[in-house]
Amino acid sequence: MFKINENYLKLPGSYLFSTIAKKVNAYQAEHPDCKIIRLGIGDVTQPLAPAIITALHDAVEEMGDARTFHGYAPDLGYEFLRKAIAQNDYSDRGCDIQPDEIFVSDGAKCDSGNIQEIFSVDNKIAVCDPVYPVYVDTNVMAGRTGTYDPKTETWSDVIYMPCTAENGFAPQLPDETPDLIYLCFPNNPTGATITKAQLQEWVDYANRVGAVIIYDAAYEAYISEADVPHSIYECEGARTCAIELRSFSKNAGFTGVRLGFTVVPKDLKCGEVSLHSLWARRHGTKYNGAPYIVQKAGEAVYSAEGKEQLKKQVAYYMNNAKVIYHGLKDAGYTVSGGVNAPYIWLKTPDGMDSWAFFDFLLEKGNVVGTPGSGFGPSGEGYFRLTAFGSYENTVEAIERIKKL
Amino acid sequence: MFKINENYLKLPGSYLFSTIAKKVNAYQAEHPDCKIIRLGIGDVTQPLAPAIITALHDAVEEMGDARTFHGYAPDLGYEFLRKAIAQNDYSDRGCDIQPDEIFVSDGAKCDSGNIQEIFSVDNKIAVCDPVYPVYVDTNVMAGRTGTYDPKTETWSDVIYMPCTAENGFAPQLPDETPDLIYLCFPNNPTGATITKAQLQEWVDYANRVGAVIIYDAAYEAYISEADVPHSIYECEGARTCAIELRSFSKNAGFTGVRLGFTVVPKDLKCGEVSLHSLWARRHGTKYNGAPYIVQKAGEAVYSAEGKEQLKKQVAYYMNNAKVIYHGLKDAGYTVSGGVNAPYIWLKTPDGMDSWAFFDFLLEKGNVVGTPGSGFGPSGEGYFRLTAFGSYENTVEAIERIKKL
Repeated sequence: MFKINENYLKLPGSYLFSTIAKKVNAYQAEHPDCKIIRLGIGDVTQPLAPAIITALHDAVEEMGDARTFHGYAPDLGYEFLRKAIAQNDYSDRGCDIQPDEIFVSDGAKCDSGNIQEIFSVDNKIAVCDPVYPVYVDTNVMAGRTGTYDPKTETWSDVIYMPCTAENGFAPQLPDETPDLIYLCFPNNPTGATITKAQLQEWVDYANRVGAVIIYDAAYEAYISEADVPHSIYECEGARTCAIELRSFSKNAGFTGVRLGFTVVPKDLKCGEVSLHSLWARRHGTKYNGAPYIVQKAGEAVYSAEGKEQLKKQVAYYMNNAKVIYHGLKDAGYTVSGGVNAPYIWLKTPDGMDSWAFFDFLLEKGNVVGTPGSGFGPSGEGYFRLTAFGSYENTVEAIERIKKL
Repeated sequence: MFKINENYLKLPGSYLFSTIAKKVNAYQAEHPDCKIIRLGIGDVTQPLAPAIITALHDAVEEMGDARTFHGYAPDLGYEFLRKAIAQNDYSDRGCDIQPDEIFVSDGAKCDSGNIQEIFSVDNKIAVCDPVYPVYVDTNVMAGRTGTYDPKTETWSDVIYMPCTAENGFAPQLPDETPDLIYLCFPNNPTGATITKAQLQEWVDYANRVGAVIIYDAAYEAYISEADVPHSIYECEGARTCAIELRSFSKNAGFTGVRLGFTVVPKDLKCGEVSLHSLWARRHGTKYNGAPYIVQKAGEAVYSAEGKEQLKKQVAYYMNNAKVIYHGLKDAGYTVSGGVNAPYIWLKTPDGMDSWAFFDFLLEKGNVVGTPGSGFGPSGEGYFRLTAFGSYENTVEAIERIKKL
């Protein structure tokens, strides 16, 4: 008789954003006339930039002609895209990353979920708390996290690095030595960043203790301040200890287009074995590449026209972030984030817990946000709003919240 | 110090088709003037059908307008596509599969590699031999296959079901009871099929012993004979023992577009736990949906126009299959397949081993095929050619082979 992967049963509830979607849909069904404003899931609302639309149409035309048709993509992704990435995201920032160290994928969510596969089940992970739930959930599925304590909402074999107002939402080097360290900056959900000097400390630490940093830089396009690193490879020594995850979802509005990439430097090794070769094996065996038309769209992101248009798109969302940040501040909320990230992190009022505030906001203001506790125990008492709505909806949502 | 997943190191060599690509590229580099004809990897060559091109352009337009822009897709895929699948692939064939039992993905390769994750590492798998290498390779990565014997090229904990000329390339019920049974019909690589009565035996067997059948029906569009099932759900009882994998790669030429789906009936359970809920959890946590524009392209596959155009495309490839089949037969080869599948399976001449024949064909005929031994030990002494080339190249390749 077959058996299931019992680790799945240890996971409490469904995936955070699936739960929120279900709750919101149920509320909408009961109140069909309500105009609900969704600032919960980090999903973009602006249309794809004209340069990207043109690239997509052109690529579609190619697919309709036998002479320019494209079947299976190369294992690592098309070279035209990997070269554009290596040049723009790395070389231009002084980072030494080659095109063949870049693995094109259908998004950072998949990559951040799959990357743990190439590591031993015995490895111990450290995560910021709160954090994007995919890191922990996928390690639970792999059997790497021990047992769950529903009281503390923590896993016995996970090293939590609290990021709270007390430490400026920046993690401290952990007491216990981890094998894998998940870092995400600009941070989801808090919107916090760390300086290059702070990140260098992490790189030095990882090299010292023999840990791998999985660095999620999905939000780097939102960095507005100097001295905030866009890539971990800006730090010395990162090539021997860090994997970087990147997404086109937020900088180019590709949440429904699906494109991302993972960088695994060839210097990153466990003894004689390069992690690059392991990830290449996984990519070749379990994945079949992002669509040609999508990779062409990705290339357009790096065109002069594309860059110009996307700068405006990012500015549009960051203006929303300002509206939320200052609106909430005016209304008396304690807020952070929103300066180098499209997320605003607020303290729930009157000691309300995160889900209670979620219900309160949904029912009284018809505004959807994300409960901080969904990102980890230290997120309890906090709440995330995203700047990815339309300007009009963002203004209206803040007006509604102010009136509560 | 972090450790790697040692199971990866057990895998001999790289993924089969990556190895072939490297060999062919190296040969081409050394002989830049050679016109190499590739009938190796099962990659299509005909352009996307006009109905699909139109759907893609329309969807791209939608993505360029805020009012019709689409961000993250629903977890299971868009309902318009799941409904079209449920209707056309199942309901119209008398199979009871509901839209919410269908999980849209970016292809059957990913699904066939990922599906093992929801099962216990202790489960024992049974595979046809020869077979599409992803099934075994991904189970090796998960640590489910024991040790590798390089002499026999077999894994200690895998149940191999030889499919050779002696048994008409149809697997027999195994002596040892498996937990997971991978079946692929029409078969890759042999092109063989089994009748509905034969498949019913497998369904009855799986229900009797408590095994799950992972049924890969990626090639069902190529079935030309009656009494060959297009779906395992044509068999009674399949809802309690079978998961079905489907692809748009071969029936609609989506190898570079990336779309597929997995069916997990809600009746398929391990005790109280439905596999549907586990796969839903995996899908929600580790995946972010196929692109909206690609799902719209998938919908067009089921339009009246799309169906008509794709019928011709399949006929085009099946005409190639005939050219290969009869050409090789005329040349004195022992061949099978090619009637209900786009693959022709031939016995290598003069007792040559599969890789020797690969080199011979590449060097003497500049034709690329796939060595049978790459699909498993019983594939040794066999060779696969695909019908997915252009008609002109297919004819030329066969002429070249005839002259050898």
